[in-house]
Amino acid sequence: MPLINIQMIKGRTLEQKRKLIETVTKAVCDSVNVSPEKVRIVITDLELENYSISGKLAIDKDN
Amino acid sequence: MPLINIQMIKGRTLEQKRKLIETVTKAVCDSVNVSPEKVRIVITDLELENYSISGKLAIDKDN
Amino acid sequence: MPLINIQMIKGRTLEQKRKLIETVTKAVCDSVNVSPEKVRIVITDLELENYSISGKLAIDKDN
Amino acid sequence: MPLINIQMIKGRTLEQKRKLIETVTKAVCDSVNVSPEKVRIVITDLELENYSISGKLAIDKDN
Amino acid sequence: MPLINIQMIKGRTLEQKRKLIETVTKAVCDSVNVSPEKVRIVITDLELENYSISGKLAIDKDN
Amino acid sequence: MPLINIQMIKGRTLEQKRKLIETVTKAVCDSVNVSPEKVRIVITDLELENYSISGKLAIDKDN
Repeated sequence: MPLINIQMIKGRTLEQKRKLIETVTKAVCDSVNVSPEKVRIVITDLELENYSISGKLAIDKDN
Repeated sequence: MPLINIQMIKGRTLEQKRKLIETVTKAVCDSVNVSPEKVRIVITDLELENYSISGKLAIDKDN
Repeated sequence: MPLINIQMIKGRTLEQKRKLIETVTKAVCDSVNVSPEKVRIVITDLELENYSISGKLAIDKDN
Repeated sequence: MPLINIQMIKGRTLEQKRKLIETVTKAVCDSVNVSPEKVRIVITDLELENYSISGKLAIDKDN
Repeated sequence: MPLINIQMIKGRTLEQKRKLIETVTKAVCDSVNVSPEKVRIVITDLELENYSISGKLAIDKDN
Repeated sequence: MPLINIQMIKGRTLEQKRKLIETVTKAVCDSVNVSPEKVRIVITDLELENYSISGKLAIDKDN
């Protein structure tokens, strides 16, 4: 603990994911006083057709 | 806010997803008094082998 | 299935929750062709100190 | 109800998933006194690049 | 990993939760071949007004 | 998007939550190239009786 779930649009590179994990883990450790091995993060890559804002699918926003 | 996650069996068409997003967003706005741009929806398409009821995988129910 | 999780700021009345559940269930049934008893919805009431946009807690936005 | 989400690294066989669903459903029924048809389980198969412990992606742990 | 979320109606005793955790952890270990310290479980206790089936809140089913 | 859920044991101060939100939002923005207003974070405060590792409730670890 803490357990963290990050949902974001598909397409980030492995390098971006490495930086994301590293910096989010550090931010959590520094603010709520836990050690890194306690922090687990799950990333969910979302398809554009599986995310919406204001009743419109992200896939339709790009067309 | 509100943030909505919808988990359902894989296989719906893009058109069905469009209608789902539109009508769920409207239902939320009308009932809890928020504007559409506040409403975010994430859809998760589930494989039949990743969902179970009564201890049986959905994939085994169809066989 | 579908299973739906709705996270929203605490404070809605029971009456609003009734309307939310009724209309979201109908929207789901009408768009992805399932019967009502298949649809399960979980509501999470969020404290203002447990939700943030743009790096600011909702509780700090109201002050 | 209960609704159960299991996130685990991708790669388990169908047979392992069958046993997982069966035994977890039984464990839930026996401990919180519900009948099997009330128990729904969703499995999420995670890619190694989408899970981290201690700020390191699982994919990097294997290299 | 695996990470497990169990959502259930509020009201189970501590003893029931102990048995639930123990038996579900064992079931997971035995079926997907992991050791117990890898298994983390989160329980969410749901109010009757925050869960619905067939468009009806659980709180209204009991009245 | 991204949408982030952080589950952690109950008891952090408002000040710790402010720092957590601020630094996690910055970490996300810097690594996956989004602007702050796109980042939403939900915190779930867990009771000790609702979290387990290795089949033991956190509440029993402290006794």
